[in-house]
Amino acid sequence: MSSKIILGSNQFGKAEVRVVKITRDTERHQIEDLNVTSQLRGDFAAAHLEGDNGHVVPTDTQKNTVYAFAREGIGSPEAFLLRLGEHFTSSFDWVDGGRWEAESYSWSRIQAHSAEHNHSFVRNGQEVRTAVLVRDGATEHLISGLKDLTVLKSTESGFTGYPKDKYTTLQETTDRILATDVSARWRFKTGTDFSGYDFNKNYDDVKSLLLEGFTEKYSHALQQTLFDMGTKVLEAHPEIDEIKFSMPNKHHFLVDLSPFGLDNPNEVFFAADRPYGLIEATVLREDAASAENAWTGIAGFC
Amino acid sequence: MSSKIILGSNQFGKAEVRVVKITRDTERHQIEDLNVTSQLRGDFAAAHLEGDNGHVVPTDTQKNTVYAFAREGIGSPEAFLLRLGEHFTSSFDWVDGGRWEAESYSWSRIQAHSAEHNHSFVRNGQEVRTAVLVRDGATEHLISGLKDLTVLKSTESGFTGYPKDKYTTLQETTDRILATDVSARWRFKTGTDFSGYDFNKNYDDVKSLLLEGFTEKYSHALQQTLFDMGTKVLEAHPEIDEIKFSMPNKHHFLVDLSPFGLDNPNEVFFAADRPYGLIEATVLREDAASAENAWTGIAGFC
Amino acid sequence: MSSKIILGSNQFGKAEVRVVKITRDTERHQIEDLNVTSQLRGDFAAAHLEGDNGHVVPTDTQKNTVYAFAREGIGSPEAFLLRLGEHFTSSFDWVDGGRWEAESYSWSRIQAHSAEHNHSFVRNGQEVRTAVLVRDGATEHLISGLKDLTVLKSTESGFTGYPKDKYTTLQETTDRILATDVSARWRFKTGTDFSGYDFNKNYDDVKSLLLEGFTEKYSHALQQTLFDMGTKVLEAHPEIDEIKFSMPNKHHFLVDLSPFGLDNPNEVFFAADRPYGLIEATVLREDAASAENAWTGIAGFC
Amino acid sequence: MSSKIILGSNQFGKAEVRVVKITRDTERHQIEDLNVTSQLRGDFAAAHLEGDNGHVVPTDTQKNTVYAFAREGIGSPEAFLLRLGEHFTSSFDWVDGGRWEAESYSWSRIQAHSAEHNHSFVRNGQEVRTAVLVRDGATEHLISGLKDLTVLKSTESGFTGYPKDKYTTLQETTDRILATDVSARWRFKTGTDFSGYDFNKNYDDVKSLLLEGFTEKYSHALQQTLFDMGTKVLEAHPEIDEIKFSMPNKHHFLVDLSPFGLDNPNEVFFAADRPYGLIEATVLREDAASAENAWTGIAGFC
Repeated sequence: MSSKIILGSNQFGKAEVRVVKITRDTERHQIEDLNVTSQLRGDFAAAHLEGDNGHVVPTDTQKNTVYAFAREGIGSPEAFLLRLGEHFTSSFDWVDGGRWEAESYSWSRIQAHSAEHNHSFVRNGQEVRTAVLVRDGATEHLISGLKDLTVLKSTESGFTGYPKDKYTTLQETTDRILATDVSARWRFKTGTDFSGYDFNKNYDDVKSLLLEGFTEKYSHALQQTLFDMGTKVLEAHPEIDEIKFSMPNKHHFLVDLSPFGLDNPNEVFFAADRPYGLIEATVLREDAASAENAWTGIAGFC
Repeated sequence: MSSKIILGSNQFGKAEVRVVKITRDTERHQIEDLNVTSQLRGDFAAAHLEGDNGHVVPTDTQKNTVYAFAREGIGSPEAFLLRLGEHFTSSFDWVDGGRWEAESYSWSRIQAHSAEHNHSFVRNGQEVRTAVLVRDGATEHLISGLKDLTVLKSTESGFTGYPKDKYTTLQETTDRILATDVSARWRFKTGTDFSGYDFNKNYDDVKSLLLEGFTEKYSHALQQTLFDMGTKVLEAHPEIDEIKFSMPNKHHFLVDLSPFGLDNPNEVFFAADRPYGLIEATVLREDAASAENAWTGIAGFC
Repeated sequence: MSSKIILGSNQFGKAEVRVVKITRDTERHQIEDLNVTSQLRGDFAAAHLEGDNGHVVPTDTQKNTVYAFAREGIGSPEAFLLRLGEHFTSSFDWVDGGRWEAESYSWSRIQAHSAEHNHSFVRNGQEVRTAVLVRDGATEHLISGLKDLTVLKSTESGFTGYPKDKYTTLQETTDRILATDVSARWRFKTGTDFSGYDFNKNYDDVKSLLLEGFTEKYSHALQQTLFDMGTKVLEAHPEIDEIKFSMPNKHHFLVDLSPFGLDNPNEVFFAADRPYGLIEATVLREDAASAENAWTGIAGFC
Repeated sequence: MSSKIILGSNQFGKAEVRVVKITRDTERHQIEDLNVTSQLRGDFAAAHLEGDNGHVVPTDTQKNTVYAFAREGIGSPEAFLLRLGEHFTSSFDWVDGGRWEAESYSWSRIQAHSAEHNHSFVRNGQEVRTAVLVRDGATEHLISGLKDLTVLKSTESGFTGYPKDKYTTLQETTDRILATDVSARWRFKTGTDFSGYDFNKNYDDVKSLLLEGFTEKYSHALQQTLFDMGTKVLEAHPEIDEIKFSMPNKHHFLVDLSPFGLDNPNEVFFAADRPYGLIEATVLREDAASAENAWTGIAGFC
């Protein structure tokens, strides 16, 4: 006999609400540019089982709320998500959690006639800043991050000493290009009081540490470099409990120029697309509280 | 005093190995077209902490293994992943698990001069088939799926009876377009013996049930339609324990033509990009064994 | 002394207007799904030189016109563009030409319970249909087309007899995979009277001929196959004067399995991304009127 | 009677050859990162008509040539393309022209411990630099450019005084956001002697002028701003004859917050995706030699 079929975990909301906030209190405008997703969790069984929408806070309403809250300012992606999460869980009895996510895009002032312009901006494309807030009942997990930060070392990287089996053809090397797109997410200690916390300063500092960590040592494997990068962040930031990385090993293959009578002393490379190595790992404090459900639904993190 | 910093969960491998297998035993060739990712789990601490690669089965070797195994045939994405998983976990003492993933792309024979051609194919773009195998020690989770299956109902959908608050401006409607890109993943019962199981037949059947489920009832909410689609699959397939969906509500807004002296009785719509609704839910058997870690790293499923 | 700086060729409008038209005269609904771009040409110097918008028909108005015209039906992308072109050039004295473009996406009825459903559709992803209308004064050029039609032959293709120089390392082969994404655009004879012309039938027929042409002969080079495909279309359609192709040679490299003790008799291939061959050519009637400006702004056609 | 069917314009080659060149003469490495496409024109009729490849310089050979030439250094995308063009047209009697194209990606040194690192780089994503060389017999056209440079003015832009017809619903505004992705291509005077010319300096200077031009005046229309930007470039660079732009008007719609009891004095905007305005125009010297065929195949430029 067949077993009963039930509704399991679920959430719903509005994804990719593109909000641009201009602060224009003075002639020197400020710009904030976010892509916000709001999803609610709670008692939504009736909608699934009976088509009864009595609890379904419309995704359109969630979108409107994002815009209305932006009127009072954004400040940082993290602070904005915290406000949204508090609003939704306190406004509707049957909403006891949710997931709020933001990407944010950085802009610089255009340099014109040797000065930074007051209201003209150029978008930086170096990386995308990310933030995720997960609330489940009383528990709140906040994760800052970045993605698509492409870095490359033209030397001080090798790969040797690996096991060989019948399918191994790779040659060892002590001098190769190491390149990756850094995707990193760092989770703040559960229970942190964020009032007054400067998330923008935290972001700039972590980004600097990650870049610095990438440069410092000879890399015996991307795994080692990853762990060093994570360690630097945790050592400098006691408020962070855990950092996860998902980093492709973007292969740069040395081109064999010998058929053309040329040498190639690590000068000319073919930058390959697919396949690529993929390295994922977590660096965390030994005493960090477990927070596995905070990471659900984030692609590419084990 | 700062706490000790350690390595947490991790995996590594080769991503997006594009393998095309032509079976040419007869003049009527067969084509299989996959994008395979292999990632290993186990004891890789030394690589992270000390740059010691003694356990690091090169991602290049993992790629070679994919190609070598394809020589003996693919059969189905699921069967192919099962063979890869068995190989890696049995070949290296320190590899006690991993994650193997595949996308596969469907091709039809070209119809030429009123007959299906023997060796000329055209790629179907209707959807992408997916498969994920997660092994952790003795436990094995197998998840089939599909994504990017775009469907639309031009009537028999409405949205009413939802709660209103100060941020609600949405009007109720009893006749709207319902459109989504179906992304669904179904997990087989843990411990299933897959010898002789026909994954391709399963795939075709589940796809048909999902499409059929989408058409059947008046939709009071995408949540309801999702649950109906999942129920149909579980009812017909006792070997499946759980199915998860992540489905955008792709808004089609009725265009106001009244300024131009025209009516618009649900005929002309603007198909919006962003933002979009996003509905995620799980339909499962009440007695299904928990398998949360099987879903880690899959984007968009709660 | 510096020469005078002037305004050259220019056009402006609204791009990517996503319009979905449901025809619901009976219970068996019809769906048309287009992405329309409208651009006007004419006397717009004042806007560029002085910021005087007296002639600038707003791009928003162009968008509204697309939606309003859709109310009366679409019929085919080509017929719809012809109506738009006629409207804009006849409505504003200073608009003497323009460029109108559409992509259209094909949908099938969902097969449910052994019947085609009346109002539930699934999007086909096999290819995208394209259309471009260029009007310059009294001259009108109409170009139908398709893109992203991915085809593959698993045999009956080779590449031999090419010139060798000091940079040549490629080995000759008489049996390889030939794969490409067909991108083709066919231009109707200038001055054709399109009243009553069935563009949808033309489209289906040309697509069939292209697929058939791809299959027919042993391919000594993608260039030869391209020319054969074009010739079939022109021979069958006297109303078409010219067809242009832009086709990547999507390399499928035979994987060397010999290090693993395996042969590989054209069975296992690596499907590469970049770089790829790129073959572009025009097949036309010797007596075709020149129409070079019709092709301006279409990427990838020489 | 049907007319004769012939081969028209055609070209072929290797597209998207990804080459990374590390210059490591000193400890302070240099990186150049290009995506190169090479296409040949000439007498290739036999390949199309008879499958005779005697003239078909393999696309693989063209790729090899790119890598071999990179061994001697790149210098600038433009200089590299000039060398490739000279090589192919002088090496094969039947090759009398071609089209060579490059994208290049900019990297900065990573700032670590308050210093620029010698061999660690981070990729800038602000824009992509482009270059195209077209040779037809003795004529040579060289076009530098950039794309995806996203800029925004938060004030000093309006749109008024446009014509109204029955499809016009847009309201006039004297204060809006103006945002676009600058795509610009500038063509050097035909016949210029490029020996010793510093293309990298030219690129940096033109980019600065474009950014500055975007900021300077109140914008009555994107057309006006475009023309001002182009004029600044031509005035400062007598060696440039022509500059073409293709710029989307990226709409930022003011969100109506009044239903929520909030004002919105140009502070909160919805950044829309599609549709978007699209403005294309040419700014050129009155005495510039015509060079229409130089622009063939570049999308989005009229």
